[in-house]
Amino acid sequence: MAERFIALLSDFGWQDPWIGQMKSIIYQENPNAKVVDLCHELPSFDIFSAGFKLFRAFKDFPVYSIFVCVVDPGVGGKRRPILVVTEDHYFVGPDNGIFSFIYKTENVRQVLHINATHYFRQPVSNTFQARDIFSPIAARLSEGIEVDKLGEPVEDYLKIPIPDEKIEDGKIKGAICGLDKFGNLITNIRFSSIKELASLTKMSNFSVFVQNKEIKLVGGGYEQKLPVFAILNSSNLIEIACSASSAAEFLKIGKLPVPVEIVGAK
Amino acid sequence: MAERFIALLSDFGWQDPWIGQMKSIIYQENPNAKVVDLCHELPSFDIFSAGFKLFRAFKDFPVYSIFVCVVDPGVGGKRRPILVVTEDHYFVGPDNGIFSFIYKTENVRQVLHINATHYFRQPVSNTFQARDIFSPIAARLSEGIEVDKLGEPVEDYLKIPIPDEKIEDGKIKGAICGLDKFGNLITNIRFSSIKELASLTKMSNFSVFVQNKEIKLVGGGYEQKLPVFAILNSSNLIEIACSASSAAEFLKIGKLPVPVEIVGAK
Amino acid sequence: MAERFIALLSDFGWQDPWIGQMKSIIYQENPNAKVVDLCHELPSFDIFSAGFKLFRAFKDFPVYSIFVCVVDPGVGGKRRPILVVTEDHYFVGPDNGIFSFIYKTENVRQVLHINATHYFRQPVSNTFQARDIFSPIAARLSEGIEVDKLGEPVEDYLKIPIPDEKIEDGKIKGAICGLDKFGNLITNIRFSSIKELASLTKMSNFSVFVQNKEIKLVGGGYEQKLPVFAILNSSNLIEIACSASSAAEFLKIGKLPVPVEIVGAK
Repeated sequence: MAERFIALLSDFGWQDPWIGQMKSIIYQENPNAKVVDLCHELPSFDIFSAGFKLFRAFKDFPVYSIFVCVVDPGVGGKRRPILVVTEDHYFVGPDNGIFSFIYKTENVRQVLHINATHYFRQPVSNTFQARDIFSPIAARLSEGIEVDKLGEPVEDYLKIPIPDEKIEDGKIKGAICGLDKFGNLITNIRFSSIKELASLTKMSNFSVFVQNKEIKLVGGGYEQKLPVFAILNSSNLIEIACSASSAAEFLKIGKLPVPVEIVGAK
Repeated sequence: MAERFIALLSDFGWQDPWIGQMKSIIYQENPNAKVVDLCHELPSFDIFSAGFKLFRAFKDFPVYSIFVCVVDPGVGGKRRPILVVTEDHYFVGPDNGIFSFIYKTENVRQVLHINATHYFRQPVSNTFQARDIFSPIAARLSEGIEVDKLGEPVEDYLKIPIPDEKIEDGKIKGAICGLDKFGNLITNIRFSSIKELASLTKMSNFSVFVQNKEIKLVGGGYEQKLPVFAILNSSNLIEIACSASSAAEFLKIGKLPVPVEIVGAK
Repeated sequence: MAERFIALLSDFGWQDPWIGQMKSIIYQENPNAKVVDLCHELPSFDIFSAGFKLFRAFKDFPVYSIFVCVVDPGVGGKRRPILVVTEDHYFVGPDNGIFSFIYKTENVRQVLHINATHYFRQPVSNTFQARDIFSPIAARLSEGIEVDKLGEPVEDYLKIPIPDEKIEDGKIKGAICGLDKFGNLITNIRFSSIKELASLTKMSNFSVFVQNKEIKLVGGGYEQKLPVFAILNSSNLIEIACSASSAAEFLKIGKLPVPVEIVGAK
């Protein structure tokens, strides 16, 4: 069996021992697990932002990779632990909407309410299910367990509002959904939509409009002569950036999402 | 031999290369070492806080795990490098009190002054004994070396003041000893003390009193209707929390420890 | 073949998934790669600072270690991806001067413009060559590929200004080049220069002069009675420090480099 990676994404930070405690549980079950830290300094409690960070990255992992995603203010409450099975990957975490970008874009085969308590670390705490439920389940998945041994399919899993990305009235309508460490503003608009709009409208010279400002879509990377510009990023999404400084500060954009439109010229 | 984990806890942060330098030394000695990062963004120089972070987490690691703990303002001075051997684990670090919570609660078999200089990285620097002494010693421990080859037993190892946790006058007296990334305030009061108090006093409906405020002890996790509440956390300790916000800010608590009392009602 | 470590140094931080994405690419090529995180919370875009962090640490890694160094504001522009081959190590990153301290002090065998596109992750993005070029190339190096299969030698690689360290007029002239998490100020002056000056001038009792202040060079570590002092650090460099507080704040030093001189007394 090909090795299955376990990627960890959380708002736990490196000032507390939680990430290490999770790894201890995973390695005790599967000493050969290949665990990769994806993000850990995510903004506390921000499910939307965490979901979009996952969305930007998951396609760089091989098939059968397992993503353990923990931004989980409702831990110990009524929200269920779930396993999302897509065409290519497994996603383990709370049923609080953190996987909403995955639901929107991926071929979801099933979503399971994880209830195989015999695999859980006992006793299960009310404050750290990442250790007690998600970690041992991820370890079992990395060993190739069949998913139907882990829980029961559910249909009513929680989806939080995710901005649409669509072509309408000769424009692409989307939103800035993410902010990175450098202050780059990442939209949910895919490069394929740009190509489709170009083909439909015979236009080129595209610009992003955000808060009544026009920002030109250019080729290349972060070294540009314009004070602010839009480029294609490494997740195949359109991103607004400044050269070696923060576009978020330049445009005074904080709370996300922020609607944008992309329009071409003749 | 069962694999022995090496867990690293430090105030080194990720902006300097120290954690990586330690791992290089460990892996050069034992290429198969299973190294787990526990905490690295601890407050600089705060031995008490580091000791309590370790205390919260170490029981989630298997027997024979090795904890390398480095908050070490006195490095290169007179403080000794030590190895603490308990019933189940090994603790490697400076003799500056960082293991005081371990001394208080664990069955300590012996404390050794590490003086096996032939295992040290040479030359031993005055500023980075985590690399030069603790890392190679931890690597040897992970390979199963006998502890009496590493140093000489000492009795006068340093203990810093650790607040008592005791039942007295029908109350549990303890203290807030830790603060986590989310602003939760973690006491040294164990769940077993609550059960003992309940049995002694026939009381229930417990409250934590801190700085003349009464905070109700409730079941469940962080989703509660009260503005501030106390719960049982994942280390079996009583913790003061707010729903998706900081209890430390809510109660204006900064410097630790802060005394608390737990009292029941009829 | 001895195992070759891959050490990662970046300004990527832990709030974005980039480090994990790099590791996914590396492990997919070489599942047995020994990847070590060196620094990731480096100041954004600060090539000089990153180069000096690397310089402080690389000698603690075994021969044939591979350093992937990514502070890369010009990604996707004209700057080339390069591989620096020294007597002992490999350095992979952008040709933006990040390896200037290496060029200055190491025996550089060759610098190659990496152009083996058939090893790159495809398509190569304009914003994340650390994933698309540096990671797969580092993975190949860890497997022992011959360097001439990776690119073409170049001579015109970029060097940024690095302060000299030299003995002149009975003094050592150098500069503070680095700042660590604790506020220690690290110079580029090597211990060997102190010994040489001592031998040349028959002087001892050395002091560092910085911004017209005299700071005594003392033995030992960070526990000293002086409010500010200079010591030999773990990279064999002279460092200015305060006991358990920040020398950078004490001396009000921010932007680097800052010139210093070391002078002895009779």
